[in-house]
Amino acid sequence: MQNNVISTTEFITPAQLLAHWQGHRHLTRRVVEAFPEDKLFDFSIGGMRPFSELVLELIRLTIVGAHGTATGQWKDVEELYAGDTKPTTKAGILRFWDDATALLNEQWPSIRPERWQEMDAALGQYEGKVYSIMLYWLDNENHHRGQGYVYLRALGIEPPFFWDRGQGNW
Amino acid sequence: MQNNVISTTEFITPAQLLAHWQGHRHLTRRVVEAFPEDKLFDFSIGGMRPFSELVLELIRLTIVGAHGTATGQWKDVEELYAGDTKPTTKAGILRFWDDATALLNEQWPSIRPERWQEMDAALGQYEGKVYSIMLYWLDNENHHRGQGYVYLRALGIEPPFFWDRGQGNW
Repeated sequence: MQNNVISTTEFITPAQLLAHWQGHRHLTRRVVEAFPEDKLFDFSIGGMRPFSELVLELIRLTIVGAHGTATGQWKDVEELYAGDTKPTTKAGILRFWDDATALLNEQWPSIRPERWQEMDAALGQYEGKVYSIMLYWLDNENHHRGQGYVYLRALGIEPPFFWDRGQGNW
Repeated sequence: MQNNVISTTEFITPAQLLAHWQGHRHLTRRVVEAFPEDKLFDFSIGGMRPFSELVLELIRLTIVGAHGTATGQWKDVEELYAGDTKPTTKAGILRFWDDATALLNEQWPSIRPERWQEMDAALGQYEGKVYSIMLYWLDNENHHRGQGYVYLRALGIEPPFFWDRGQGNW
């Protein structure tokens, strides 16, 4: 799916980066699954958003980010996804998640190799090199999923192992 | 500090990666500072470790990881750091943190460019390419710092902005 003609001194290839991110996404999906249906939407700590809202943010950023990185055009998620962007059930969130997974896999190979070191304004407003914009999505996912772990622990539920990115059915 | 003769198609250069990680580390340091002294060591949610223990893990991984990446030798932190590796005060943790910052900056330029795509066993036991080992430290930091955000919110304390990696005094 990816151009593999790379120098051996590259830190990470685009194909490796996609696999790395999708591995994290696979883990995040399992954290969604670990939540009881009601707690996914109404449990929170210290006035924070419930995990459903954090996850919807992650899905939006994945879809908008993949498209923006590939095309240079920053569109609203509603322009890029015909399904339900505000699901109110766990099944609906997982469907949205899986569709984002497919969209990310579809867009990734069309990202030009020199794109990562170009300047852009993510979502039309946050200036930076594209690599740093892309890493923001990944870092933000680790950040919010870590918060989901605390919610699960507070609910007495053991979360999946952080290191287990088993490349399953995504 | 870093060899800048790179192709323009590289996703991220080693110098950019160091700056990215140190930006995150700067933010994590500010999260440590935001904790009241006692809560840093005794507050937890759902049976999790207090934030002090999460941070000591991050510091150990930074020191051991930087040295292991640079040299291929995986040593215990006590072999690499002459100071107090089990501080019991916030000031002690911050001192350990800052020393790790300096050690990371010192080691980084000696990492061979082809090192990232080599196989190794992190800490002598976790096999993978070196880039994925290095990303583990970064991802793990985002994960645990996100948990620190929940602790702070539960304590009624507003954490620093996630996106503010102001390259201050690290």
